Amino acid sequence: MHVLESVLYAEDLEAARSFYVGLLGLPEIMFDPDRDLFLRCDGSVLIIFKASKTIVADAGVPGHGAVGPGHLAFSASCEEIEDWRAKLLAVNVPVIQEIDWKNGAKSIYFHDPAGNVLEFATPNLWGFAKAE
Amino acid sequence: MHVLESVLYAEDLEAARSFYVGLLGLPEIMFDPDRDLFLRCDGSVLIIFKASKTIVADAGVPGHGAVGPGHLAFSASCEEIEDWRAKLLAVNVPVIQEIDWKNGAKSIYFHDPAGNVLEFATPNLWGFAKAE
Repeated sequence: MHVLESVLYAEDLEAARSFYVGLLGLPEIMFDPDRDLFLRCDGSVLIIFKASKTIVADAGVPGHGAVGPGHLAFSASCEEIEDWRAKLLAVNVPVIQEIDWKNGAKSIYFHDPAGNVLEFATPNLWGFAKAE
Repeated sequence: MHVLESVLYAEDLEAARSFYVGLLGLPEIMFDPDRDLFLRCDGSVLIIFKASKTIVADAGVPGHGAVGPGHLAFSASCEEIEDWRAKLLAVNVPVIQEIDWKNGAKSIYFHDPAGNVLEFATPNLWGFAKAE
C-alpha cells in the first residue's frame, strides 16, 4: 500500500507557504490561503490544511482537521541532513533534537511555523535504500 | 523531497491495529499498545501514535500529538477501490463519500476507528502513473 497524500495542519497558510515552498523548496501544486496548500513530493503529495476550515465538510469532501503538533519525516542522506541543518540555522530555525539511531540511521528534528515536528531522517531508519 | 514517515493519531491502538493490520493488511513493524504502531507502506512508513503519550517528549524524541480527525490517502486503482469498498462494507465500515474528480481520478472516503478520514484515490489524481 502506498501513501498518496500526507497531511499536516496550520492556521497560518501564508507562513506555511513561506516555510515549505520558500525554505524547504517543495513545489507548490495549489494554494488557497484560507483553506489549503498542496505540495508535490517524490511519489506523493503533502497537504497543509487549515483545520478550522476543513473540519466542516466542504466541497463535497468529508470534514477533518486536527489541533496540536503533528509529525512528518522527510528522507535525506547524511550529507543532505548537514546541508539542511545549515539552511535551517541560517534562517533561525533551530534543530531541536538530533538522534543517531542504533541501526546507523540519523535524524534531525525541527518545527514548522505552526509547531508541527518535522524530521529529516536517513531512509535506512526503516530499511529503505538510499534511492527510495 | 520524499515523505518517509506519515503520521495519524489514535488513543485506542489495539483498535487501530485491528483496522490497519487486520483489515487494510499493512505489515506491522513495531507495536506498543500504549504508545505507537509502526506500519510498512510502499516506500514509506505510516505511524499511528497515541497523542496523549507522545505529546510529552519521550525517548529522546520531541513531543508531538494532535487531537481531532486527521486525513491520509492511499493509492489504489479503480479496480482496487471497488475491492476495498466491498471489504469495508463487509465489516460495516461505510464509505462516507465518493468523488469522481474532473481530471478522471476517483476517491472513496471512510473513517478509521479513531475517526481519522482515510481515502483511497487513484494516483492520477495528482498526475502520478499507476505504478507509483
